Amino acid sequence: MYHCVSIKAYQRLLKERFSLIGGTKFRLGSVEFDVSGKDGLGGLIEEWFGRWASSEGLAVYNPKLSGNSQTFPDYFVGSNREGLLEVKTFDITASANFDIANFQSYCESLSKNPERLDSDYLIFGYRLNGYDLIIENIWLKKIWEITCPSGKWPLKIQMKRGIIYNIRPATWDSHNVQYPVFPNKEAFVSALYETQKLYLKQPTTLEEQNYYYSVSRNSTERED
Amino acid sequence: MYHCVSIKAYQRLLKERFSLIGGTKFRLGSVEFDVSGKDGLGGLIEEWFGRWASSEGLAVYNPKLSGNSQTFPDYFVGSNREGLLEVKTFDITASANFDIANFQSYCESLSKNPERLDSDYLIFGYRLNGYDLIIENIWLKKIWEITCPSGKWPLKIQMKRGIIYNIRPATWDSHNVQYPVFPNKEAFVSALYETQKLYLKQPTTLEEQNYYYSVSRNSTERED
Repeated sequence: MYHCVSIKAYQRLLKERFSLIGGTKFRLGSVEFDVSGKDGLGGLIEEWFGRWASSEGLAVYNPKLSGNSQTFPDYFVGSNREGLLEVKTFDITASANFDIANFQSYCESLSKNPERLDSDYLIFGYRLNGYDLIIENIWLKKIWEITCPSGKWPLKIQMKRGIIYNIRPATWDSHNVQYPVFPNKEAFVSALYETQKLYLKQPTTLEEQNYYYSVSRNSTERED
Repeated sequence: MYHCVSIKAYQRLLKERFSLIGGTKFRLGSVEFDVSGKDGLGGLIEEWFGRWASSEGLAVYNPKLSGNSQTFPDYFVGSNREGLLEVKTFDITASANFDIANFQSYCESLSKNPERLDSDYLIFGYRLNGYDLIIENIWLKKIWEITCPSGKWPLKIQMKRGIIYNIRPATWDSHNVQYPVFPNKEAFVSALYETQKLYLKQPTTLEEQNYYYSVSRNSTERED
């Protein structure tokens, strides 16, 4: 199910896990310091993964290095760059709270790039111990293995001011949860479109109603 | 007009400017690299400033170090922590594009914390030369010296989907611009409230209209 290069990377990382300790240093003039904040850490781990994979001789390619500013994937994998790999990170002392993807762009991109549905997700759970960054756990997943329904929506999403922003992760690592992950790809896709339908058709407030109106108008324009 | 500690910091930084070269290093396990991206750089320079100021014996205090998660100021200055100092950064190869403040919070906070209007702004214009970070220019300003009107609004703001997000900077360093900075504090405050009034009272689309409705309803609730 996962790409064989993703599996190889995942297995080697798991083996190396206990040596994956490090951190960020910042210097300007004569003042240097160890960075303790989490700002930008996700991007650094993501970039680090590409460099680590190269040093391991794995067929992992960063599209940004060839000047491509596309938003997905984070990496191509395989000698023909046929696989898609996304890197996600979160502070393991709290629940996974990363954005899986922008809801609207994901819905739109699936029609143009259906292969996106089969992207691998390599997830790093880190801990900051003072200035030390420690990788505590790593997962290799498909999107339907890290998403779930929520109370209000067929798919767990992040909503602000009546607008759906991002697809958000399930608690995929526990059996004892109210909303377990989807059983398969089809269940995820169905939840995605049911959420989209509900969002576009069933406004609950005047504010939302008009946003839905503008969204559906824009989608129609794009489809023409 | 500026706090004397801000002035001292500014003058020393200007003198040191040509030695203010550095960068970010990230390491995890055996793979270390120089970070070339701009992600998180603003936060790093902001934190660096506090450490540099301490090393210079200047009365500059980071409220976050005492566990305060308030969003402003970035620093207190003066032995009684009586002055407010904000640190802003931007890539000098493009126009200044930082967020001065969230529009809505700034409007609200001025009534509770009118002293915020007199915050000093220390602005770092940097350049990334490969992996090298270089501070090319530094400014010490008041908010009315880095803001201006725009075509549509009395105050230049960032708007997305009919919602005003942030107060955005003028091109304060050139005389030959369409919208020069405000002549004084009063002109800025007047533009801020004129923008707020226009935003709440004169919707231009159905979508905006409803957002304005919800904003004004929320403001009323908060004022009760």
